[in-house]
Amino acid sequence: MENEKYISYEESGVSIDAGDEMVRQIQASLASTFGPRVIETENAFAGLFRLDYDEKLFKKNYKNPVLVACTDGVGSKVQLAAKIKKFDTVGIDLVAMNVNDMLVQGAEPLFFLDYIAVNKLEPEITTEMVKGVAAGCRLADCALLGGETAEMPDTYRKGDFDMAGFAVGVVERKKIISGKNIRKGDVILGLASSGLHSNGYALVRNICFKKAGLKMTDAPAELDGAVLGDVLLEPTRIYVRSIVKLLSKYKVKSVVHGMAHITGGGLVGNIPRVLPKGCDAVIKKSSWLVPKIFTFLQKAGPVEEDEMFRVFNMGIGYVLIVAEDFADSIAKKLSRLGEKVYRIGRITTGTGIVVLK
Amino acid sequence: MENEKYISYEESGVSIDAGDEMVRQIQASLASTFGPRVIETENAFAGLFRLDYDEKLFKKNYKNPVLVACTDGVGSKVQLAAKIKKFDTVGIDLVAMNVNDMLVQGAEPLFFLDYIAVNKLEPEITTEMVKGVAAGCRLADCALLGGETAEMPDTYRKGDFDMAGFAVGVVERKKIISGKNIRKGDVILGLASSGLHSNGYALVRNICFKKAGLKMTDAPAELDGAVLGDVLLEPTRIYVRSIVKLLSKYKVKSVVHGMAHITGGGLVGNIPRVLPKGCDAVIKKSSWLVPKIFTFLQKAGPVEEDEMFRVFNMGIGYVLIVAEDFADSIAKKLSRLGEKVYRIGRITTGTGIVVLK
Repeated sequence: MENEKYISYEESGVSIDAGDEMVRQIQASLASTFGPRVIETENAFAGLFRLDYDEKLFKKNYKNPVLVACTDGVGSKVQLAAKIKKFDTVGIDLVAMNVNDMLVQGAEPLFFLDYIAVNKLEPEITTEMVKGVAAGCRLADCALLGGETAEMPDTYRKGDFDMAGFAVGVVERKKIISGKNIRKGDVILGLASSGLHSNGYALVRNICFKKAGLKMTDAPAELDGAVLGDVLLEPTRIYVRSIVKLLSKYKVKSVVHGMAHITGGGLVGNIPRVLPKGCDAVIKKSSWLVPKIFTFLQKAGPVEEDEMFRVFNMGIGYVLIVAEDFADSIAKKLSRLGEKVYRIGRITTGTGIVVLK
Repeated sequence: MENEKYISYEESGVSIDAGDEMVRQIQASLASTFGPRVIETENAFAGLFRLDYDEKLFKKNYKNPVLVACTDGVGSKVQLAAKIKKFDTVGIDLVAMNVNDMLVQGAEPLFFLDYIAVNKLEPEITTEMVKGVAAGCRLADCALLGGETAEMPDTYRKGDFDMAGFAVGVVERKKIISGKNIRKGDVILGLASSGLHSNGYALVRNICFKKAGLKMTDAPAELDGAVLGDVLLEPTRIYVRSIVKLLSKYKVKSVVHGMAHITGGGLVGNIPRVLPKGCDAVIKKSSWLVPKIFTFLQKAGPVEEDEMFRVFNMGIGYVLIVAEDFADSIAKKLSRLGEKVYRIGRITTGTGIVVLK
């Protein structure tokens, strides 16, 4: 077969060497998230994380540890990032979408893994993406334990990519927050979002680019001159530190009865996931200031207000349902921890739905 | 705004209702993988898995539990599945790629999560995909704790999809298998693969479709009349039960010194990941029968033999490096557990590489 042209894997569109180079480059990002619980290994097939220690001094004292895990992507926000080639912030969104979900049950995030799929491995770009993921992990106090980068030339178009994330945390069995303690009279506290977070982007793109014919570099007057691309790519807020800290202050008393991460479905779709069947959540829309990006989208669509509330967070990214007597002190604590807190409603007897007033 | 046409999320290409319907349909798949350690929850933001119990009777007795986690996709094997619209087996590949990786360090898989991204949610298709994932989880004795299905009309072309998986397991700190005990004289055992597993598919497609002009429905003589599509989509073998069972028989003695899951990079790329620097792995190519699909691809390319061994598993999907005195009894145990076992080589003094003979 000497004169035949041999065919190789690299010619088939996959470069093993580019992969190796990138793996080296992202090691530094990973290491920036490692605490003492990560067992560092070379070339390992999987990441290792110590849940507990047998040495008394370091013992974490889980009696009945429950692992909490979730997975999520960033949705079509990645398309916007690809559009303006800004790759270092969607990783923060990826971490946020997962760790905020896990917080809801009272868990403390431990570690994170990412899956990034691209058309062609460009080490600088993938490195940027992983830097974003590592930044998110540092904000969430969790280790970026590993990841996979897949080069799939026939699935993804040139310049396109997708990301999925996976988070694992732990909660002591007795401390799981399920919503079952929610009762009439409980107060609903809302924490401000940083903007759109990572939901509703199919609609956002439809409105901004198809309908309004805007460009990412435009600065529409309704956004007070902010550049559209910056507003749309603002990373999702990570609520981990505030919530973990808050819960640690109520180790004995159960005062936080339920929580919800406001993602696709908005307040009306996500709060019912923790409401007991006999309760409604009555939310007063005027109790917080809806950020300009939402009013802008609503008008530019136009989009009906109900639909806006069914798709977007409308300025509230995370919700706590708390015992009335503790509402003020919880709100104060969360403010001190850096959150913008609104008292947005009350629990009433009902049928498990959200009533917007 | 009464006469204006309102714009909605659904018109923008994302259907919330189709998503809800599918979530209901896949609940049964998930439940088929649940053991008593899964805490069932309704509409939860994250999955819950009990690592241990405080009741003595059920106590798992981890002294120093280390969580092991990894993520992987199926690579371009998904493209072949999409091509012939066979969606119920790539989920097995997805689980296999992850749990086999985790096994290498001696971990027992606990649970799994999947991320599936599609152009358009078609509940029947996604349900098929998740059925495959659940089948893989049952084969790996791990719970399918959750997942995410993303509809991304602008990232994925019509009919295309991608999948990523995440697995978490546990290993007692002292039982971690790192390869550091590998020494001269150790025997290398190879476990038969079920075929291509999930690696090298960019090259496979290049050879079969572009070069040889074959169709998935063809049955080339070199494959003894087997249909090409069936051979190419044969699910990756899951080695969990055999390896977990084997390791449980050597709780005191450390006789399995190292293991490797043979994925992209083949034997020559993956075995060095566990070799100590002073050792080589000398592998005798004639010690097992290379399955016909590999010889077929090699000839049809043509592909150089070195390249074949750098891209494909060549018939060996998993490798154990074991103490010489125990090699026979380990091989016998693995055979009894249903594996096809070959004694494929030896550890010699060297520089950390694989020498093919």
